[in-house]
Amino acid sequence: MHFSIPPTAVVPELQARIDGKTKPPGSLGRLERLALQIGQIQQSLTPSLDHPHLLVFAGDHGAAGAGISAFPQEVTWQMVENFLAGGAAINVFARHNGLQLQVIDAGVAHDFGPRDTLVDAKIAFGTGNYLEQPAMSASQRDTALARGAAIVGALADRGCRVVGFGEMGIGNTAAASLLTHSLTGTPLADCVGRGTGLDDSGLARKQALLAQAVKRAALSPGADALCVLAEFGGFEIAMMSGAMLAAAERGLLLLIDGFIVTSALLVATAIAPNIRDYCVYCHRSAEPGHLAQLRALNAEPLLDLGLRLGEGTGAALAWPLVRAAAAFLNEMASFEAAGVSQ
Amino acid sequence: MHFSIPPTAVVPELQARIDGKTKPPGSLGRLERLALQIGQIQQSLTPSLDHPHLLVFAGDHGAAGAGISAFPQEVTWQMVENFLAGGAAINVFARHNGLQLQVIDAGVAHDFGPRDTLVDAKIAFGTGNYLEQPAMSASQRDTALARGAAIVGALADRGCRVVGFGEMGIGNTAAASLLTHSLTGTPLADCVGRGTGLDDSGLARKQALLAQAVKRAALSPGADALCVLAEFGGFEIAMMSGAMLAAAERGLLLLIDGFIVTSALLVATAIAPNIRDYCVYCHRSAEPGHLAQLRALNAEPLLDLGLRLGEGTGAALAWPLVRAAAAFLNEMASFEAAGVSQ
Repeated sequence: MHFSIPPTAVVPELQARIDGKTKPPGSLGRLERLALQIGQIQQSLTPSLDHPHLLVFAGDHGAAGAGISAFPQEVTWQMVENFLAGGAAINVFARHNGLQLQVIDAGVAHDFGPRDTLVDAKIAFGTGNYLEQPAMSASQRDTALARGAAIVGALADRGCRVVGFGEMGIGNTAAASLLTHSLTGTPLADCVGRGTGLDDSGLARKQALLAQAVKRAALSPGADALCVLAEFGGFEIAMMSGAMLAAAERGLLLLIDGFIVTSALLVATAIAPNIRDYCVYCHRSAEPGHLAQLRALNAEPLLDLGLRLGEGTGAALAWPLVRAAAAFLNEMASFEAAGVSQ
Repeated sequence: MHFSIPPTAVVPELQARIDGKTKPPGSLGRLERLALQIGQIQQSLTPSLDHPHLLVFAGDHGAAGAGISAFPQEVTWQMVENFLAGGAAINVFARHNGLQLQVIDAGVAHDFGPRDTLVDAKIAFGTGNYLEQPAMSASQRDTALARGAAIVGALADRGCRVVGFGEMGIGNTAAASLLTHSLTGTPLADCVGRGTGLDDSGLARKQALLAQAVKRAALSPGADALCVLAEFGGFEIAMMSGAMLAAAERGLLLLIDGFIVTSALLVATAIAPNIRDYCVYCHRSAEPGHLAQLRALNAEPLLDLGLRLGEGTGAALAWPLVRAAAAFLNEMASFEAAGVSQ
């Protein structure tokens, strides 16, 4: 899959428009570069960020029972119920910041029954245990990628111009650690953190188990990203990768959350490097492996608040800054129009 | 003036409420500490941030003509007109983020005539030129402090629980540099920056002129903050100091913007050190003197986006994060209520 980089011909005109606004040149800092990025993606001097959505993909991990998380696996479906009831952090932040929330069952180990507000894209009742076997088959992986793409395609058809990514899945920081190690070459120890709150002995156990998974998979260095995804990924991660690729292909702006969402982006980037032009890195996670990801992507996040919750909360919290970047470009008066001396 | 520090008895109960929310303990990072601060200020487990306001104080500086700014003095009143017409950056950000904007003429060198949407608190048509004389008399200073307090008092009477501060005044980074130097003891050179965009020779000229002002005033080290304010302050700065003191006295949360707003806070802090308990430091300004201020206040801002526009734009951009902190405390489900395993 290949994207064309958005043509840069519009950039000088965009920059002139930004500089003509009633403010000292450059004084809006990062927001000016964001406005330039958004305008370039949309090839427009008046870009729109209409119908912003935040997608939360949920999935379970076969390795979750082995002691890689501080919480039991059932918390995945319980938190999905919490999302549907509107009681989680992502509900609160999306509500206050004007993001439409969509919750997707990518592969939770629970039967939710028919539910109006839950998108049923379930691949299976959780992945296989990567300590013993690949987490998913090539066919499951490809189905997950395609379903993610279809979800975003439908949103784009309805006029959505910006999509944020979030996730829920007990054990998915472990999967993200394995993906980050395999896709960036960063030593495993630098990719593994406490996740939802492991203590020192829990962290040591997680590290040992993940080293065991790496050994079991025996991937060659520089292995294909799709192989890595099948070995260690979660269904929620694979579905996000597919959704991200489709979002960039449709010219949407992508709001990238923290450690787990960025692991899905690493997969997408391996497939289509130019996807990075469409991404806003929303926050610097407290999960240590995020640093290795940001380095690999040459990314500088907007927020640094010590968040490590997931669910897309960092994306939802950064969204007002992104909206503000487009808004100043569209709504501020120029020196000329306002009659202000330059 | 003395405030009592808000009693800490409520803190353990607040912390338990935060930890009972459906998220790993501590996973909302800075937002959890913000929620604790807001709850403690209001002595409430369900704090309210109702009727948020952003106050923009405008004033002119007698020294502006001497070559301390890249823009001519008339830009102050022209930008006030831009605020009233809704075309400035602060209008856009306040509108999108749900802040009520109030523009105050603290001492602009222009006759606006009677205007519905402009608060007329004018002390004079600009301050005196501190290169030759004190910027204001003790009586003007005290009137400015009192008018700032009255403006905030009226808002508090109408149920406002949070107030952000912004400013407009050609030449006011120079005044803020002089205040910061005099009140923190930081070498003058480390307090002076390019403001709205001086080039190298402009910066050198500004530094030389401000050194001349320091020499002229001949304040003794550790001079009284009110004397320093009268020597170098702007009417907008003095009025903000008064407004800040009143806001904390009434138990409001204060959203502190960048370099110039923080210079007003330095004055307020010298009068009532506990005011800092009521402050949220919204962003790290690109203006170098802000660093000295943050060090003196032991403050860690929420945002670091290279902003240097003023007007309260950093406060308006950080406000959704502050609102999110109170919102998760008030609206998130607990583990118990949501039936999520802990």
